[in-house]
Amino acid sequence: MTRVSRRHFLGSLGAAGASLALTTGTVGFGQVENDVQAASAIVPFEGTHQAGIDTPAQERMFTAAFDLTTDRLDDVQAMLKNWTDAARRMCAGEPAGPVSGSPYLPPADTGEAIGLSPANLTVTVGFGPGFFERDGQDRFGLKAHRPEALIDLPAFASDELDPEHSGGDLIVQACADDAQVTFHAIHNLARIARGIAVIRWSQLGFGRTSSTSRTQETPRNLMGFKDGTNNIKTEDDDLMREQVWVGSSDQPAWMRGGTYMVARRIRMLIEVWDRSSLADQEQTFGRDKVTGAPLGQSGEFTMVDLDARDAKGNLVIPERAHIRLASHTTLNGVRILRRGYSFADGMDIRTGQLDTGLVFICFQREPAKQFVPMQRNLARDNLNEYIKHTGSGIYAIPPGVQPGGYWGQTLFEG
Amino acid sequence: MTRVSRRHFLGSLGAAGASLALTTGTVGFGQVENDVQAASAIVPFEGTHQAGIDTPAQERMFTAAFDLTTDRLDDVQAMLKNWTDAARRMCAGEPAGPVSGSPYLPPADTGEAIGLSPANLTVTVGFGPGFFERDGQDRFGLKAHRPEALIDLPAFASDELDPEHSGGDLIVQACADDAQVTFHAIHNLARIARGIAVIRWSQLGFGRTSSTSRTQETPRNLMGFKDGTNNIKTEDDDLMREQVWVGSSDQPAWMRGGTYMVARRIRMLIEVWDRSSLADQEQTFGRDKVTGAPLGQSGEFTMVDLDARDAKGNLVIPERAHIRLASHTTLNGVRILRRGYSFADGMDIRTGQLDTGLVFICFQREPAKQFVPMQRNLARDNLNEYIKHTGSGIYAIPPGVQPGGYWGQTLFEG
Repeated sequence: MTRVSRRHFLGSLGAAGASLALTTGTVGFGQVENDVQAASAIVPFEGTHQAGIDTPAQERMFTAAFDLTTDRLDDVQAMLKNWTDAARRMCAGEPAGPVSGSPYLPPADTGEAIGLSPANLTVTVGFGPGFFERDGQDRFGLKAHRPEALIDLPAFASDELDPEHSGGDLIVQACADDAQVTFHAIHNLARIARGIAVIRWSQLGFGRTSSTSRTQETPRNLMGFKDGTNNIKTEDDDLMREQVWVGSSDQPAWMRGGTYMVARRIRMLIEVWDRSSLADQEQTFGRDKVTGAPLGQSGEFTMVDLDARDAKGNLVIPERAHIRLASHTTLNGVRILRRGYSFADGMDIRTGQLDTGLVFICFQREPAKQFVPMQRNLARDNLNEYIKHTGSGIYAIPPGVQPGGYWGQTLFEG
Repeated sequence: MTRVSRRHFLGSLGAAGASLALTTGTVGFGQVENDVQAASAIVPFEGTHQAGIDTPAQERMFTAAFDLTTDRLDDVQAMLKNWTDAARRMCAGEPAGPVSGSPYLPPADTGEAIGLSPANLTVTVGFGPGFFERDGQDRFGLKAHRPEALIDLPAFASDELDPEHSGGDLIVQACADDAQVTFHAIHNLARIARGIAVIRWSQLGFGRTSSTSRTQETPRNLMGFKDGTNNIKTEDDDLMREQVWVGSSDQPAWMRGGTYMVARRIRMLIEVWDRSSLADQEQTFGRDKVTGAPLGQSGEFTMVDLDARDAKGNLVIPERAHIRLASHTTLNGVRILRRGYSFADGMDIRTGQLDTGLVFICFQREPAKQFVPMQRNLARDNLNEYIKHTGSGIYAIPPGVQPGGYWGQTLFEG
């Protein structure tokens, strides 16, 4: 665990080590690390694409949607520049700004990540529909720049959406292998946003539910199943180009190299699920609970045979099984990059049940042709008996930041 | 990270490895682990005391309070036996029961921890006042056994208690180095409790805020400060015996080897805190923000000098600084074992602020002489400007389970 390593490192040097580490922002060298990604525990902040999308999914997430409270475009642009500078530092393992500046001013870093590893922190920023227009008003003069692909999502069968967990003019997704590092990132951006934007909703994801790289095992969701085995992997260059990244001839030009995020807060009714039989559970997903293999197959990664029938002529993967309805085979080759996390937010006081489930986050080139038909297809999913969607958001994720650049630069200056 | 190690192990053996691991419940051997506690990643379940108290604080916590819905003592005793059996297995890294039993029955384990390390899981159980009597009614014939030390907590100055985050007939604290392992433990005990008890409140703690062993660095809270530097450490045998464990001549006899837990959900108003100056923040805690040293000292572990005065004759540690008021020096030697975690539960919709802070959990021999006077002393704490207590609970933690025994055996059979 990178956190423990960092502590040992600091402990071995004492207070002098702590201040050294704070200054350089790079620690952990000389350590034996058994975490795949931990060589430096730093994911490059700059690049063609924003980090946190094709980065192998980190273990923890803290994501917040913000609403803009200013009516001045200059404020928004200035905040995005300040956010970029702070995030660039935090992703390098440095404080967002000096902790010990003037004693008479608030610290320019909130301090809770001092002494922690960079933990592969990534911070990914996007713009919701409200960034471009609100109630039809061209609030910042950006309405003409709203991408056609940034649709207003239609209603879906399993929607029980709560406005308090939905929408937002901006999204900030922080992922890392240490929850406190993700919290620290959002905390500092919220501090910097003061007077310009406020958090609309925030969501802690305590464990990743997606494998986005061939170096990772498929994790289990809180229903105990491996799901998303056939997710796009970041190593699949052709699929990433075709299904995820906005292409070099796509419009608008400022979005090239970017992508679109759809976030769905999916409550799992685990108390009901836990009372269903093993056979029901496996027929619902279409997979063996223990091995993760498609029903009728022996290995998790064996190709799903949607046409296979048993001796009685019945489909081995049921008509309404989740893996059938979510399969790109069923969806004419349409795929998405899933990058979700489990959540546990205490109790749903209306029902006395655990308020727990999956923050489903996906990235794609064109939501209207990818998430929307997939989610429509899932209206027939037997899984709907055990889940409900309680939050929803869609965001345009601009391309990566260049050295010296800032989030949204292609929009503001393109 | 133990979770990653476990995955690699499983990955290297493939599906055969997965089923082997599931059967034996012990994995990770042959791995190079850099986590202090990870040698086997198993904390012994049985012993004089319950685990999860003097265990070096693990990184993650998921805790739930339950209310009993049965009116039969036999049901309660049977549930505690079933809970013990399941927890004994889970703490050994095994499923709570067979996942693949009959296809026609619900699985006896919910499955989401298959393939994960035991991650030093501990499960600690206690009894709230309602276990012994509710509204003055001797609901299970246990009223005469209620320990005098299990008081009803008085009201405190910073209380803004929410019944939805307070109380409970039973408490179950699960701690581990993997959040999913803690969730899995509570999830399965809730499943087993069906018809006898329901969850009243649950709380995820995403990062530990206490050091309870000399092998651990002092972590930072979400205000960015090291707090609890002078916490009792499990290596302090004399202090543990004197301040934490119910002694061999204490009453009632069934509690000997046990302790008392006080849990307080403390909201931090971090938006306000973030706007206060560095000097204000440091004067509030009485420590340097970066080094954690007491004001006027240079090292975190330098003895706090509460009488020190500066050149102008002013106290270096202010009169109302947190470390002064919480110090055992100020409290006639009274101490507690702190074992808390940070939480982030989305937004407080009433204020639009982050619903975040500290789940303060402490263990002690006699709350009326330890937590209560300490918390009363903190009524004058400058920190109260930035916090409020939104949840509260007190629980009698019975002694450890013996081989073949169960939680509460000394009460039921003593």
